[in-house]
Amino acid sequence: MQVDNAFYAQSGGVTAVINHTAQAVIETAATDKRIGKVLAGRNGILGALQEALIDTSVVPKSAIKNLAYTPGGVFGSCRYKLKSEQDCQRIIEVFAAHRIKYFFYNGGGDSQDTTHKLAQFSQQVGYPLTCIGIPKTIDNDLPWTDTCPGFGSVAKYVATSIREAALDVQSMAATSTKVFIMEVMGRHSGWIAASSGLAADRPGAAPHIILFPEIPFNQQTFLEKVQYIVQRYHYCTIVVSEGLKTSNGQFLSEADSSDAFGHKQLGGVAPILAHMIKKHLHLKYHWAVLDYLQRSARHIVSAVDLKQAYQLGKTAVQLAMQGKQSVMPIIVRTSNQPYRWHIDSVPLQDVANIEKKLPKKYIRADGFHITPSCKAYLAPLIQGEAYPPYLNGLPNYQPFPCRLVKPKLQPYNLL
Amino acid sequence: MQVDNAFYAQSGGVTAVINHTAQAVIETAATDKRIGKVLAGRNGILGALQEALIDTSVVPKSAIKNLAYTPGGVFGSCRYKLKSEQDCQRIIEVFAAHRIKYFFYNGGGDSQDTTHKLAQFSQQVGYPLTCIGIPKTIDNDLPWTDTCPGFGSVAKYVATSIREAALDVQSMAATSTKVFIMEVMGRHSGWIAASSGLAADRPGAAPHIILFPEIPFNQQTFLEKVQYIVQRYHYCTIVVSEGLKTSNGQFLSEADSSDAFGHKQLGGVAPILAHMIKKHLHLKYHWAVLDYLQRSARHIVSAVDLKQAYQLGKTAVQLAMQGKQSVMPIIVRTSNQPYRWHIDSVPLQDVANIEKKLPKKYIRADGFHITPSCKAYLAPLIQGEAYPPYLNGLPNYQPFPCRLVKPKLQPYNLL
Repeated sequence: MQVDNAFYAQSGGVTAVINHTAQAVIETAATDKRIGKVLAGRNGILGALQEALIDTSVVPKSAIKNLAYTPGGVFGSCRYKLKSEQDCQRIIEVFAAHRIKYFFYNGGGDSQDTTHKLAQFSQQVGYPLTCIGIPKTIDNDLPWTDTCPGFGSVAKYVATSIREAALDVQSMAATSTKVFIMEVMGRHSGWIAASSGLAADRPGAAPHIILFPEIPFNQQTFLEKVQYIVQRYHYCTIVVSEGLKTSNGQFLSEADSSDAFGHKQLGGVAPILAHMIKKHLHLKYHWAVLDYLQRSARHIVSAVDLKQAYQLGKTAVQLAMQGKQSVMPIIVRTSNQPYRWHIDSVPLQDVANIEKKLPKKYIRADGFHITPSCKAYLAPLIQGEAYPPYLNGLPNYQPFPCRLVKPKLQPYNLL
Repeated sequence: MQVDNAFYAQSGGVTAVINHTAQAVIETAATDKRIGKVLAGRNGILGALQEALIDTSVVPKSAIKNLAYTPGGVFGSCRYKLKSEQDCQRIIEVFAAHRIKYFFYNGGGDSQDTTHKLAQFSQQVGYPLTCIGIPKTIDNDLPWTDTCPGFGSVAKYVATSIREAALDVQSMAATSTKVFIMEVMGRHSGWIAASSGLAADRPGAAPHIILFPEIPFNQQTFLEKVQYIVQRYHYCTIVVSEGLKTSNGQFLSEADSSDAFGHKQLGGVAPILAHMIKKHLHLKYHWAVLDYLQRSARHIVSAVDLKQAYQLGKTAVQLAMQGKQSVMPIIVRTSNQPYRWHIDSVPLQDVANIEKKLPKKYIRADGFHITPSCKAYLAPLIQGEAYPPYLNGLPNYQPFPCRLVKPKLQPYNLL
């Protein structure tokens, strides 16, 4: 009997734990005799379009195990939306040629939309394709699920980083730096900025100020707050979301801020705030921009996050084998303390293109910090350490041996 | 018999391991009956001038043990040069009032100069003061010593960070980010930038390009190199020292770069390079600035660095009790592989105000990477992991209980 193959791919911004989801899909598929090979798309859905399929069945088990420890997306990711019916048609042709009947797409909101569209198309054309979405996004903005794999690890990294930097600034404040600004990701929602608030475990602890995309920036209120904090604690630490906006809804990092300090900035909101503080409060500052470091920091992932990444991948395969179609497994929280959760699933049509915003009740009334209920939500997500193996003093991230299946079709020109 | 007290203080930029040196001084002094209390200066030498002396003898042993795990400088640091004979005179008065006969100053080149000056002054005025410098600087630029405590941990953090971020960029390169730039510290020497090169453990591995303060920046050569790397590997990772200079010797971050892209930048050399790449090569970029995070990252210190930080503090006290004057303990390397080292000492006059530059032989001929001999030097310094304890998912850095000794003198006005 010839069995059916599965396609798995990674989509959108990658995380420190997405490869652990890939590992779960590969290992779980291997336990079900109805599934043949797991063929991974090189660079997400592009791998399907370009017939660039990585044969995971020939990869040594040790390399599959290493996926638990490897940040980034070993198969490559993409930012690509299916552009036309022609794209969908091509994917079905590639899948038919390689006997692929299961489609697993590991990504955020846009990616779940792709999964949903492909499910609809395959039904229209009568090709039997089981389509399952698997959540992943550091932005934590997918609906229904308690959290998204990748986010908890970013939260742990961000809260750790501001706690560490704050001890440094506090040491220097007598004669040098008084204000430290750390810029984090989250262009459209403040989940990551909020997570830094977990470091504030006692009065006066960092971060002293959190700036959210959800709260329009007010220069005067902000500067008054900074001044108050410096007077009170001798130093001030600030976490700012890259998505901080003016009251006009414009990104502060893109605003023409020539009024404020006479010249334009090349991206990055942290240096803009730094110069504002220098100009108006005459305080010495330092600033950092975390960028990709926050989402690739496998060396300090959350054990809870890592576990959930695996469970979702595993459940995705199980759902497919139960005959479910167009669904995405989600995490359901049943208790904060102790954190209890299980996996359920929702239809993709309820997920696609919906963003879960940071609720108002999670932001303190003055707009500069998180509330206790936000902490209660976030705290379980960063629990536990899961260190990678080290070799010669550095995390031992091995390259994944990607061998492509021989193409059977003509090349496809992307539009 | 009334015994003599010791003064210990932290100076200049702090590190992830300087408190472990403090611990060594306190614990070693406690084993010698000739030493009474260790009084720590609040905010470095300012603590001596302002008679702000922290009594470490009343601190619970558990809090002293915690110093091994706490980044920053728990007693506070300062950037302050003794300004006059009056400053020296005041310090001697404070020391006499508190029966302080041992002076331990934990810092970089400037701080050793302070230690040396104070030793000379105390001799002139006939006050018996044993002055011992203890090395510390993430810049790794002190002469004689094999390395400086704090540097090995920064090196480990920086090499880990670029390795992790590179895996992310590599995943995204097909449809998104092609170039990633990470800015590190090192205003006057390229030791930290160089240490990122440890991540390059196989052909094509990150970082692909390292930019040193020692090599004048040439835009054309740089852009050609970036283009070549992107063609060859599909993505490019760059580590740049904040101290990168133009051929005129001007910091690139302060240069009026309006020729290159039409407006001035608010600090940070990474965004300048990013926009240069965008403008001339039309490649999508991301950039990060590590700033204080790199020197406060206690969560990923080097075990070797941590151990050396302790040994130097311990030896400093032993040298004092052997009657040595105006010396600094140093690390002497006797073998690269396995790394063998022991502690020796040098006169402070041979240390003060001398900077150890990154040698030419450690920079590859094309100026864009490190040599094998540089790797052989650096590799031992990042070995071993020494994780802090975690509580609720975050490193458990406890505040140090600082209780000041009651002042005996009139307040002193700093000039």
